[in-house]
Parts: sequence; structure tokens; C-alpha cells
Amino acid sequence: MTSKGDLTRSRLSASMLELIQTSGYSGTGLNAVIDHAGAPKGSVYFHFPDGKEGLGVAAVDLAATQFAQLIAEAAASAGGAAAAVRAAVEALTAIVSDSDYRLGCPVSVVTLEMGAESQRLRNACAAAFESWIAPTAALLEAEGLDAAPARSLATVVVSTIEGAVILARATRSAQPLTSAADVLAELIDVRCQKVGGAQ
Amino acid sequence: MTSKGDLTRSRLSASMLELIQTSGYSGTGLNAVIDHAGAPKGSVYFHFPDGKEGLGVAAVDLAATQFAQLIAEAAASAGGAAAAVRAAVEALTAIVSDSDYRLGCPVSVVTLEMGAESQRLRNACAAAFESWIAPTAALLEAEGLDAAPARSLATVVVSTIEGAVILARATRSAQPLTSAADVLAELIDVRCQKVGGAQ
Repeated sequence: MTSKGDLTRSRLSASMLELIQTSGYSGTGLNAVIDHAGAPKGSVYFHFPDGKEGLGVAAVDLAATQFAQLIAEAAASAGGAAAAVRAAVEALTAIVSDSDYRLGCPVSVVTLEMGAESQRLRNACAAAFESWIAPTAALLEAEGLDAAPARSLATVVVSTIEGAVILARATRSAQPLTSAADVLAELIDVRCQKVGGAQ
Repeated sequence: MTSKGDLTRSRLSASMLELIQTSGYSGTGLNAVIDHAGAPKGSVYFHFPDGKEGLGVAAVDLAATQFAQLIAEAAASAGGAAAAVRAAVEALTAIVSDSDYRLGCPVSVVTLEMGAESQRLRNACAAAFESWIAPTAALLEAEGLDAAPARSLATVVVSTIEGAVILARATRSAQPLTSAADVLAELIDVRCQKVGGAQ
């Protein structure tokens, strides 16, 4: 059973996440989070006794879970790693374009703003990236790549998607994401065919 | 001849750039920029009458020029597009790791923080990305790719490098950048060999 307190905590985390996606971490004030969540004043320090940093970690963790779920859904519905990556990028493209290019990746922006200042937030961001790299690497291993090249390629897949979201936002165009999906799918096919051909 | 005023303007832009790279746009206060630049109080509004936004545009423009120069140097010294991209990523890796993973791309973070709020900053970021995509596309066209696929692949190259810088910062490791260089060089070779093979 979910208590009212748990709900408030979830709402605060979700609001922090959405505001970070739009305006970054430093540009998101706690009052704006409370207003956005429709939460009572004081609820941030009740649920997050260390304030903004703890709320930021919760938002990054929530983003990690949401995008990992999107990867899992893409992997379950698509045939093979290349199709799964393409499906994940397409789902992400819909989110970014439906927001009129106002939403970006909260993990990227928190890394860039806070990575030098807060080890706790940087660790949360590193864990978020890892939670996307690991299942992508598993998809690639399932197609015959060894662990090290699968992990390396999975890291590039996540890097490319992160960068493409940024370019899409800057140019207000889905084209960087479409190009990323095409190139990543081709790249995965080339690498996996090489392995297949060598068998 | 460079006047003292021009020097102060340049120093303010360079300081804004460095502070954005470390802490983002919203996290960089004008007083910190003035201190970092060793510039007199009031100099920001003298050189940038519209304040932080104008200074932010100048910092993004400076970042665009610096990285475009790095691409031009890599293109001049390396043999072919794949080697040039590898050389550019290696130069960037040195900058990021020498900073102990404290410096990220100012254009990415300004896009993510301010893209939804300031059209002027977003346009400056889009122009910065374009100033890196265009010469990369030209390198790919020089190896026989048609204009549209060259541009698409160049966009992916820039996206991947941007994302890899972020993952490198989050994980305090050069590995995402090394993987990006390897994969991008392979991808460019595959695409250009296809064209060569078809001729």
C-alpha cells in the first residue's frame, strides 16, 4: 500500500525531474518544485532532509528507471539489438518532439552542471548511465558479441543518443535522433554480422 | 590592434566559457565571472549591455570557434575523415581528462539549461553545432559520400562526441571517448568503403 507521504515524495521527485529536464538543476528552485507538485511547503525537507541534493538524486534515479524501462520494452517488442535500439530512440524522439523540444535528458544536464561539485549527484548520474549501458550490452552479447566489445558499443549507443537529444533540442528538429537511429542500427548490424560471419 | 577594452571583453567571454564548462549557465554568477577574469566591476554591462545572456552567447560563440579550430587542425594533420575524427576526439579527451573531468561542453549544457527559455542562446548553440557538423560533413564528402548522407553521418559524429564527453565526466573515465573514437572511425571507414566499392 502506498501512503500519502509516499505519494508526496513521488510527486516531488517527478516534478523535480520534469523541471530539471526543462531548465537544468541550478535553474530549478525548490519553490518551483513544490508548486509544480502541488505539495505542501516544508514537504521537501520532510521527505528529503538534505534538501535539493537529495531531491536531485531521487530525480536522477527516477529518470534512470524510466529510461531503463523504455529500453526493456523496446527489447521485448523488437527483434534483435538493432531493432531494439531503433525502437528506444523512436520512443525517445516522440517524447522530445511532443514536448516541442523543451525536454532534454536530466542525467546529462545534472552531470554537466553538478559533476564537478557534488560527488553524490555525479555518482547517481554514473549509475543512471550504467543502468542503460548494461541492458544494451546484454542485447549485443545475445547476438554474439563478446563482453568487452558489447560494453564498448553499448557505451557508444548511450553516448550517441544522449548527444542526439541535445542536438535535437538545439535545432528543434528530430533529424539528429533519426540519423542516430539509422547509424546505430547499421553499426550494430555490421558488428554483429562480423561476429556471425566469423563463426 | 587590440584595445584594452577588447581584451577585457575577451577575458570576460573566456571566463564565462570556463565557468559554464564547470558549473553550467545558471550556476555561473556574473560576480564569479568578473572575479575569474580579474575584470573591473561594471565591465560586464559595459561590454555586454544586456548582461548575462549576451555574455552567454559570446561564450558559446567562443566555444564554437575553439572546437571548429580543433576540427580544422585534426583535418589538416590527419589522413582522411576517420583519422581526423579520431584526432579530434583524442585532443578533446586530453582536455577533459587534464581537467580531472571537471570540464564539459558548454554548448551542451547551455542547450539543456536555456534552450526552452532563451531563443537567443538556443540559436547560438544551434549555430555552434552547425559550425562543427559542416566541416565534418565536408571531410566525409571529400571521401565520396553524397551531401545528404555526409551531413547525416556528421551529425551523428558530433552527437556521439557530445554524449561521450558527458559519460566521461559522469564516470570520470576516458573510456566513453576512446570507445566513441574507435566506433566512429570504423563507421566512417565502412560508409566510405561502401561508396568506394560502388564506384
